[in-house]
Amino acid sequence: MFEIHSPLPAVDPSRVEKALRLLHRSLGPSKIITSKDGCEPFARDESEAVGRTPDAVVLASTPKDVVLTLDCARRAGVPVTPRCAGTGRTGGAVPLRGGIVLSTLGMGDIKEINHHDRVAVVQPGVILEQFHDAVEREGLFYPPDPNSRASCGLGGNIAENAGGPRAVKYGVTRDYVLGVEMAAMTGPLIRMGRRTVKGVVGYDMTGLFVGSEGTLGVVTEATLALLHKPDMVLTLLAIFPTPHEAGRAVAAIFRSRICPRCVELMDAGALQAVRAQGVGIDPLAGALLLIEVDGEGPACERDMERTGEACVAVGALDVLVAQAGTQSARLWAARRELSPAVRKLAKYKLAEDVVVPVSQIPALLEKTEALAERYKVRILTYGHAGDGNMHVNFLWDDPADLPRVLGAIENLFRDVIALRGTISGEHGIGVLKAPYLGLEQSHELVSLQERVKKVFDPKGLLNPGKIFPLRV
Amino acid sequence: MFEIHSPLPAVDPSRVEKALRLLHRSLGPSKIITSKDGCEPFARDESEAVGRTPDAVVLASTPKDVVLTLDCARRAGVPVTPRCAGTGRTGGAVPLRGGIVLSTLGMGDIKEINHHDRVAVVQPGVILEQFHDAVEREGLFYPPDPNSRASCGLGGNIAENAGGPRAVKYGVTRDYVLGVEMAAMTGPLIRMGRRTVKGVVGYDMTGLFVGSEGTLGVVTEATLALLHKPDMVLTLLAIFPTPHEAGRAVAAIFRSRICPRCVELMDAGALQAVRAQGVGIDPLAGALLLIEVDGEGPACERDMERTGEACVAVGALDVLVAQAGTQSARLWAARRELSPAVRKLAKYKLAEDVVVPVSQIPALLEKTEALAERYKVRILTYGHAGDGNMHVNFLWDDPADLPRVLGAIENLFRDVIALRGTISGEHGIGVLKAPYLGLEQSHELVSLQERVKKVFDPKGLLNPGKIFPLRV
Repeated sequence: MFEIHSPLPAVDPSRVEKALRLLHRSLGPSKIITSKDGCEPFARDESEAVGRTPDAVVLASTPKDVVLTLDCARRAGVPVTPRCAGTGRTGGAVPLRGGIVLSTLGMGDIKEINHHDRVAVVQPGVILEQFHDAVEREGLFYPPDPNSRASCGLGGNIAENAGGPRAVKYGVTRDYVLGVEMAAMTGPLIRMGRRTVKGVVGYDMTGLFVGSEGTLGVVTEATLALLHKPDMVLTLLAIFPTPHEAGRAVAAIFRSRICPRCVELMDAGALQAVRAQGVGIDPLAGALLLIEVDGEGPACERDMERTGEACVAVGALDVLVAQAGTQSARLWAARRELSPAVRKLAKYKLAEDVVVPVSQIPALLEKTEALAERYKVRILTYGHAGDGNMHVNFLWDDPADLPRVLGAIENLFRDVIALRGTISGEHGIGVLKAPYLGLEQSHELVSLQERVKKVFDPKGLLNPGKIFPLRV
Repeated sequence: MFEIHSPLPAVDPSRVEKALRLLHRSLGPSKIITSKDGCEPFARDESEAVGRTPDAVVLASTPKDVVLTLDCARRAGVPVTPRCAGTGRTGGAVPLRGGIVLSTLGMGDIKEINHHDRVAVVQPGVILEQFHDAVEREGLFYPPDPNSRASCGLGGNIAENAGGPRAVKYGVTRDYVLGVEMAAMTGPLIRMGRRTVKGVVGYDMTGLFVGSEGTLGVVTEATLALLHKPDMVLTLLAIFPTPHEAGRAVAAIFRSRICPRCVELMDAGALQAVRAQGVGIDPLAGALLLIEVDGEGPACERDMERTGEACVAVGALDVLVAQAGTQSARLWAARRELSPAVRKLAKYKLAEDVVVPVSQIPALLEKTEALAERYKVRILTYGHAGDGNMHVNFLWDDPADLPRVLGAIENLFRDVIALRGTISGEHGIGVLKAPYLGLEQSHELVSLQERVKKVFDPKGLLNPGKIFPLRV
């Protein structure tokens, strides 16, 4: 497995000692891990980034624990890395200098699901899938569905502004966070936002907080908007000779004025990984679209029909409607297992999460082919084609190939920006993409954001080295 | 007409003189108004707030004009009030100290409407209704529709995060702004955001900018997301004996799992104003819901039917389907003329824009009745009941009643907050609501926002006195 280790120095031991003393006094020993074995797992998340083993891990169980931990960190001058379930893909929860990791996974209460106002109030440690189940039992619907839904926590979803396949129709986490209660480095808990869908009192501080990757504060409670659960969901599988027809099909579907709730594309390499999982896919298929439409019965059926027609019109080899239940579940399971399955195809993997305007998907696929050829690196692409959000995977076996891979990645980002896209669709910047931030954003915009961070965290102790490259 | 005049002192004359010298040198005389007669109209907007007549009005026609104007203001230390069409309802575009008014109404180009990616690129001075027409000609749809759509500009919509009746289904301006180019007091133009719907690179600076009421920067270009134009729109009129049944009907509609695109409520007083416009309404009606459902043909028709049933079930006296075209247009015209029509019912009027959770609409209506009785002031309520966003109008004839009115308003805000609502749904805080900000938001949250403003505008020269009460 490919790993990128933190190059940053450890925290000064005298500061660590002071922090530990303060933490023990404030929180008592039961909520603090300091053993090397206990702390080590908290140096990693689901990305290639590996941090320094933290000096202490705090297992917060109340908002007050969060406030006290930040207070101890500030007084000792020790960095704090907030963490929920640690399923992030860009190292957002990885402690680059050690210090304190503050876990909110233990705060896992769903405090309210209100059917009348279609809102829920949750703690950060609620697991997304459990939340999905709870609201769907009430006939309600919370759309964000990152791949890690079975293990990720809502606090992490909020920190990273998590997306997922359903974003194409329903948007991302930020679109559902009405309000948060959060702790910043500057003092007491702060409530932002509201309980109503509409509201324009002051700046959108809630929206600013969502997706700030743990660099502005730590969420202790959130108020989430819910929708009605759609009456019907239909799954469609369209196979194509090459990814180019699949890319064109995506544009054709939207041209027919249909907005499916998911449009997942897999190229030939991704299909190979799916087949390796034992899912039978037509051997002629060089690309696949996995599509979900939803809505009211007859309208949903008609959308499915027209979606199929759009696929056939641009060259689909076959269009299959998945039988409800098992078949659709098997397809989605294979889709969700793609990331680990792809990892098995080579010794090393780096996956990049980019977005281009939907009309540019065919152009993006051509660019990745050109990059594969030019840099002699294996590239395999899949993702949420409906909103142009593609995951481009770089695979290699010889460690000596790394410079070539990194060259290809930087050029992918440049291509994506030239196609008027963005270098991160849903995984965030974290530590892995921080060096590339300046490719997309101007110096002035980055500096503006760094100064906003300073408002929340004057000493730069909250998740340092994330989003903005650390200048040591 | 009731007016609240700025109590703030004029700008120091030597600073004004310096600003004028710099402006003339940078922009030439053709873009600058300095005559008292020419400047006076720019002291007002569509609210009760009246500012000091500005010392100069700049009619910007390019982004560079905007940058140069802010630069002159900074160098001279003179406040700048950005302004688009001046249709705001809380005094956001009113220059409290005079100084420079910077109008972007002259930058009115629609630079692009892209059907494939469903985005548009616009300048701030584009009039909303002209933009609606342009995108609808392409089969596309831009939902935000504030009452002032025929005269308001997109720049002002962005500054105020404008809403409108369709927000209940489609959200507000912020939900459609993908990216902006803006000028801040700190230097060159800054591009924020992106052209794709998805993207998580850095903080959501675009979302922070939208709704910042001209206190963070001046928008010079925006990239807006578009939807497909719905196939069908149906208008429904339901009349009720009292507002209480109408309020219950709103909850009942959503309970039937329908999300209409507009649900407008008018109480008896508002109906009186509608009747005074010559629109015939059943004399038994003590309240009315004006409802729009949209979508694909048969599904839309079924939603309309079920909406009607829900209204009847909670006591509607009558439910009428408006014939397409004229009848529906006449109803909406009457709805849009309500604000000026209500103004004619008494010598003085103050309208407050509040939101409560939808389940609390009946409770809000009871509270306003109680306030009318307790403070002996006439209150009349209408608005976007579908998202709980109600406009509560206070009417009086004797100037001596003002203190009672202000008492009733402050208590309305306290009631709204107790019902877990918010004191501004779509009109913003501006200058008129700034004194009440602290009722809803904690000192810490307000102070955090003031420090964020300082990042964009260190000297406090950009639209001072808006959102945050000015401490002179």
